Amino acid sequence: MNTPTSRAACMQADERDPLAGFRSRFVLPQGVIYLDGNSLGPMPATAPHRAAEVISEEWGDQLIRAWNTRGWFDLPARLGEMLSPLIGGQAGETVVTDSTSINLFKAVAAALTIQEADRPGRRVIISERDNFPTDLYILQGLAAFIDRGYELKLINDDQVNLDDLLDDSVALVALSHVNYRTGLLRDMAAVTAQAHNAGALMLWDLCHTAGALPIELSACAADFAVGCTYKYLNAGPGAPAFIWVSEQHQNRFWQPLSGWWSHRAPFDMRPEYVPAEGIGRYLCGTQPITSMAIAECGLEIAAEADMAEVRRKSLALADLLIDLVETTCADHPLTLITPREHDRRGSHVSFRHPEGYAIVRALIARGVIGDYREPEVIRLGLTPLYLSFTDIWDAVEILAEILDTRAWDTEEFRTRGAVT
Amino acid sequence: MNTPTSRAACMQADERDPLAGFRSRFVLPQGVIYLDGNSLGPMPATAPHRAAEVISEEWGDQLIRAWNTRGWFDLPARLGEMLSPLIGGQAGETVVTDSTSINLFKAVAAALTIQEADRPGRRVIISERDNFPTDLYILQGLAAFIDRGYELKLINDDQVNLDDLLDDSVALVALSHVNYRTGLLRDMAAVTAQAHNAGALMLWDLCHTAGALPIELSACAADFAVGCTYKYLNAGPGAPAFIWVSEQHQNRFWQPLSGWWSHRAPFDMRPEYVPAEGIGRYLCGTQPITSMAIAECGLEIAAEADMAEVRRKSLALADLLIDLVETTCADHPLTLITPREHDRRGSHVSFRHPEGYAIVRALIARGVIGDYREPEVIRLGLTPLYLSFTDIWDAVEILAEILDTRAWDTEEFRTRGAVT
Repeated sequence: MNTPTSRAACMQADERDPLAGFRSRFVLPQGVIYLDGNSLGPMPATAPHRAAEVISEEWGDQLIRAWNTRGWFDLPARLGEMLSPLIGGQAGETVVTDSTSINLFKAVAAALTIQEADRPGRRVIISERDNFPTDLYILQGLAAFIDRGYELKLINDDQVNLDDLLDDSVALVALSHVNYRTGLLRDMAAVTAQAHNAGALMLWDLCHTAGALPIELSACAADFAVGCTYKYLNAGPGAPAFIWVSEQHQNRFWQPLSGWWSHRAPFDMRPEYVPAEGIGRYLCGTQPITSMAIAECGLEIAAEADMAEVRRKSLALADLLIDLVETTCADHPLTLITPREHDRRGSHVSFRHPEGYAIVRALIARGVIGDYREPEVIRLGLTPLYLSFTDIWDAVEILAEILDTRAWDTEEFRTRGAVT
Repeated sequence: MNTPTSRAACMQADERDPLAGFRSRFVLPQGVIYLDGNSLGPMPATAPHRAAEVISEEWGDQLIRAWNTRGWFDLPARLGEMLSPLIGGQAGETVVTDSTSINLFKAVAAALTIQEADRPGRRVIISERDNFPTDLYILQGLAAFIDRGYELKLINDDQVNLDDLLDDSVALVALSHVNYRTGLLRDMAAVTAQAHNAGALMLWDLCHTAGALPIELSACAADFAVGCTYKYLNAGPGAPAFIWVSEQHQNRFWQPLSGWWSHRAPFDMRPEYVPAEGIGRYLCGTQPITSMAIAECGLEIAAEADMAEVRRKSLALADLLIDLVETTCADHPLTLITPREHDRRGSHVSFRHPEGYAIVRALIARGVIGDYREPEVIRLGLTPLYLSFTDIWDAVEILAEILDTRAWDTEEFRTRGAVT
């Protein structure tokens, strides 16, 4: 589509928007333009009812019986099956459980164990200097703990590329599909093939793509993936994350967080650990059922959305945002750090500005909720299920006004503290 | 107190019960006598309101801002501080986070790392054959993963005692304070001292004691402890668990699940992992906020209860239960497997019966909710905050009737499947 050049044109684009109907599936506060669904997705309209149901009816009335009568035990697998098509997984390859960090640990541990059997001696793990920190921290913590000489090497696209590092010392490549700060999208098929050609396994962090764009883990022959559900999948604050393991790897080895939910027969209560077959092996302990049950509300909506359509609109919203910022805010030192090319861009757009922190706070005070990331980064999420073209128009008008009037330049906004 | 010998005497005991007022703090379904609070505690009366608040007001209206404006980031530490006095911990020694299984992994990993530095060469971990399986599974998974020759040796009080195994090869003793099946209570002070005398560190699983009886981790000089909050702390289904680490050990080494919530400055987003000082180091990733927020409702109640009084009543309820079962059900092959001595008994009572499974199902059908554990074990939880002496009287009457009439002997009840 052509990028709208007036508010009226934005309204026309909204009228033609095939996803417009999804807006009513969410509750958003009056007066807010929410550009932070890439950090915490908003509340599905069904969530309050589901919360009341799981609390009062299931916990309150059913008590312990709800584990069976209300299917609590099945939630990780059931939500995993709902989510799997959104990431291009097959049946039985995904569970919703634990946190992204913990699922990373399981996946990395399993990948290294497989490589130690198949290609012994490989002791390098490649990631990215600008990866989301928890990915790097988990790699560091795991490597230090097992103390078998694993070394973390980091790409940094300006200086060190994957090509520079990939050789027969590499056990695993662990990258984010979309960079949390810049919004850079990696080519999953190409990078996975590149890793495999060097004999490395490939782990994808999908936190910033699951629910945002079409993903084809199986078609790309990826090995492991993890991601969170509380961003583009609108599953609720801190909702359990997911882990996807290619069927070929699932039964080869234990993952080390071998709690009872990963046992073949947990209620036999035997002292010997015997792992479940299949993706159930990647569970660990008892899951937070209230958070898990509410997560289904967001997953239901995502499962109904056409991801190709979501992607199309996300790119159009971002094109509009970039165009408008570069025209209406041209006098201000805003630097786009997100790639302009559609095939290299995820679903958020980031600008650097020396006063980025204060600007984000001023935006929030005016109802435009984006977020700030070190250093100097104003990060704006484009979430097609509940944002309109007119929202983007209005948000940029407010941004331009804040910049033009230096409304950010107050002690309140400049003082570091909580961003929001 | 003297054990009541009539329903009228039970009612009199209830009238004198200093904990009777706590009953109204919980919602329990009509017609149910709930003897499974040791598996899933019932719903605090405040939980539905708190759930609505965290869903609609905090997530719905505050959106991402709630992390700061509603204190979501602080929940693990804040709930940890509420819980710490209940387990005899000091300030800054407890966080509520993740699952018991995952917290076990962190604690065991840290303990072994400390021992490898302080007392190298120790490669034995002692636990108990009849420990809750997840404890054993985590030990097995961790030992297999690090592959440094750790060996798991299991006590079994009938044949192998701690004395038989404790020598200078032992790095860690990991036991449950109360056995999940038999209800056997271990002497925390004595066992901890015994482990320390042999140079071993001591890890306690408090799943079946936290909120059930007074615990003195610090006074007993324990090293690590974990436990769940959804049993006697009534925090909700699968609510996040807790981990307690003695202050002396906290800053010595990383724990390997080193996600960003355990970083000294998570929002600096730096690639190098630098652990937080203190118990924050034992966090990992983003927590399930809805489940976490609701957990506070149960913890608030527990924090108000006098644990010595709770313990006194729990023992009295159990004495009553044992007496009544042994008199009114004397003609049936019920075998008490819980120790009779007060100082060796936790807060549940278990009987074996060859038809235990069907009997539990028949009890549930009559509104007496207990649970079944392999093999043949009828497990009944005594939870003083919402159970009365009259409840116990009535429950045993129903049990006796089921046994006398063989009401359990139906295809429905005998067919194995979900217990509840």
